[in-house]
Amino acid sequence: MAVNLHVPNPDQIHPVAGVTLGVTEAGIRKAARKDLLVMQLAEGSSVAGVFTQNRFCAAPVTVCREHLVASDPRALVVNTGNANAGTGQAGLAAARETCRAAAGLLGLAPEQVLPFSTGVILEPLPVDRIRAGLPACIATQSTWLDAAQAIMTTDTLPKIASRRIVLGGHPVCITGIAKGAGMIRPNMATMLGFVATDAAIAQPLLDSIVRSAAEASFNSITVDGDTSTNDSFILIATGRSHAPRIQSEAESDYALLRAAITEVAIELAQKIVRDGEGATKFITVRVEDAADEAEARKVAYAIAHSPLVKTAFFASDPNLGRILAAVGYAGIADLDVDRVQLHLDDVWVAKNGGRHPDYREEDGQRVMRQSEITVRVQLGRGGAATTVWTCDLSHDYVSINADYRS
Amino acid sequence: MAVNLHVPNPDQIHPVAGVTLGVTEAGIRKAARKDLLVMQLAEGSSVAGVFTQNRFCAAPVTVCREHLVASDPRALVVNTGNANAGTGQAGLAAARETCRAAAGLLGLAPEQVLPFSTGVILEPLPVDRIRAGLPACIATQSTWLDAAQAIMTTDTLPKIASRRIVLGGHPVCITGIAKGAGMIRPNMATMLGFVATDAAIAQPLLDSIVRSAAEASFNSITVDGDTSTNDSFILIATGRSHAPRIQSEAESDYALLRAAITEVAIELAQKIVRDGEGATKFITVRVEDAADEAEARKVAYAIAHSPLVKTAFFASDPNLGRILAAVGYAGIADLDVDRVQLHLDDVWVAKNGGRHPDYREEDGQRVMRQSEITVRVQLGRGGAATTVWTCDLSHDYVSINADYRS
Repeated sequence: MAVNLHVPNPDQIHPVAGVTLGVTEAGIRKAARKDLLVMQLAEGSSVAGVFTQNRFCAAPVTVCREHLVASDPRALVVNTGNANAGTGQAGLAAARETCRAAAGLLGLAPEQVLPFSTGVILEPLPVDRIRAGLPACIATQSTWLDAAQAIMTTDTLPKIASRRIVLGGHPVCITGIAKGAGMIRPNMATMLGFVATDAAIAQPLLDSIVRSAAEASFNSITVDGDTSTNDSFILIATGRSHAPRIQSEAESDYALLRAAITEVAIELAQKIVRDGEGATKFITVRVEDAADEAEARKVAYAIAHSPLVKTAFFASDPNLGRILAAVGYAGIADLDVDRVQLHLDDVWVAKNGGRHPDYREEDGQRVMRQSEITVRVQLGRGGAATTVWTCDLSHDYVSINADYRS
Repeated sequence: MAVNLHVPNPDQIHPVAGVTLGVTEAGIRKAARKDLLVMQLAEGSSVAGVFTQNRFCAAPVTVCREHLVASDPRALVVNTGNANAGTGQAGLAAARETCRAAAGLLGLAPEQVLPFSTGVILEPLPVDRIRAGLPACIATQSTWLDAAQAIMTTDTLPKIASRRIVLGGHPVCITGIAKGAGMIRPNMATMLGFVATDAAIAQPLLDSIVRSAAEASFNSITVDGDTSTNDSFILIATGRSHAPRIQSEAESDYALLRAAITEVAIELAQKIVRDGEGATKFITVRVEDAADEAEARKVAYAIAHSPLVKTAFFASDPNLGRILAAVGYAGIADLDVDRVQLHLDDVWVAKNGGRHPDYREEDGQRVMRQSEITVRVQLGRGGAATTVWTCDLSHDYVSINADYRS
């Protein structure tokens, strides 16, 4: 059901020097599926991350935050099948035990291991199975594709994006994976996203890039408006390429690297939407001429979250008044609706708050039948703009989420 | 598909002295269905109303607000099939023309007529058909049941509630109708609700009751989180009973009348949820021990709006971590999740932020299979509480909204 979502050819997925991947079938929830990933990082790697804003953040998120400030991370352990969220003190102990077990095998301190979990909430993490699976992960040499598959839950396809750029005359690779299809309305980061580069870069610059890239990508998508308990976006720089170390935001290499990382993050975020649970349409919501970006985002998310708008896209029904209704309830108290314009791709639907005199239903219908659609709303209030990506709401969304645990 | 929604027996629907109803088939959108209602009010009636907060409010809402302040209303005209929203200046002219036409037939000033529309947004109101249908409405003597049927759109059943009380030794009737099944996240009032009483009451007191009754009823429900462009809740007091006129909030009759009107409004609001598009479950979300009512409502609506929570109810799947996740992203920045308790009816699911040690999946499963379920969340922050009613999210919600216009 995914919308124009393709797995890159293996020759377009660039390995990242300094990152070693290993996956296994640990049987955490279901048998015979890759569900455990260990990502080892070369000595001297830098890691930055942003995490869910959900107050019920999962135990691994809490531990991960602690470890990120405490020490130099050298390994990531990611399990699917169980989110280790809503699990209280026992959940925290399980996340710490995961780190301790991996650290023991890798000759690291437990604080050098970052734990990640995704899956069902409110069930105890089967930490024994993780412990039992770790040696196989560490002994295996897996590909980025294996890793992308190992972190899937309701995803129908693995999500990978990769770029190669040249910094200071040397090739640098940026490769990332992500997972997520439902409970997607990230607020700081999506469910799980890991992007690694072999570039060398100072930690404060990496911290800055992870935030700006998350804002432009994982924080600009929504499937169902639910902010997960486990959202994490991790950016790794191993420094194992031969490119010179980036020390300042003023360097042109900084801008190049940041742009490439942001591109990878946006591609991953869009892939999550393309694989949104039950998605049949990929919708770009563009809000322009807003007084500031905050109100542009309010309007964009009101449209992107409206079940009525989303079911109309599913039905290819140009019932476009629903979009205006969403604009109207987005919370801009002094919105002058007579200045609002609405386009659907190239079709001018609403002019100055009412139906455009030249709008013809068949034009709206034509665009609504496409698998990729851009909604453009102009508020007539200022110069700010934003873009948010979402998908439609279909029968399959209901089926998938009604059956998730069975 | 409605959840335990019953139409009262005719002998439980009390006529309201001073209210004359007339409906007809005006063919506004579809043939052979009642789609036009005229409600005539006896001289001296008082009318109060609350309306949608959607900035794209429909033209009739704008006109209705004007007329409510300008004059003493004597008639309401309600059409279904077309919302007259997103219709700009032409829509305003159409709403005014509706009033003018009805006023001409009834010997009133146009300002004494209140217009209401519900149906598809962004299409021109066929005012000719309304004009043509008005004489039949005025010539007909219809029942409250007829009126409730005439305002239905995607509703599967008419919604009526009625009470009889005694004030100052005299019987007083309160009868109301409402419509709405989708685009329901009222903010000040639901799609359309009309409650009339033959009690006599001073205008400021009526204004006060309409606001408090709306808050406790139509503003405490959600089907899909979409705030309609047309929401209107109108409270009429004809003064045609023999009960003495209520002049002050200190009178015991005031409290009695207010309680009865609120009961009728809550019953109508709950009926809207019971008939929520595709609903198979009626869910009461109770949030307690909040610091203030505003945060209690934030949490209650986060739960009630979560597509993941709603699909779990549809599936009778006790995937109750989704409820905790919604509590976590409801926007209480300093929420201490270790103090959060979750009950599902009598089953204690989460204690101090984690799974209750005695919680058994089969107990959750038992409650989830019921058609009526209460979710109770205690935040451990203070003494405020709120209740919100909602329904599940089913395949039929998608079907209904994918096919609405066809």
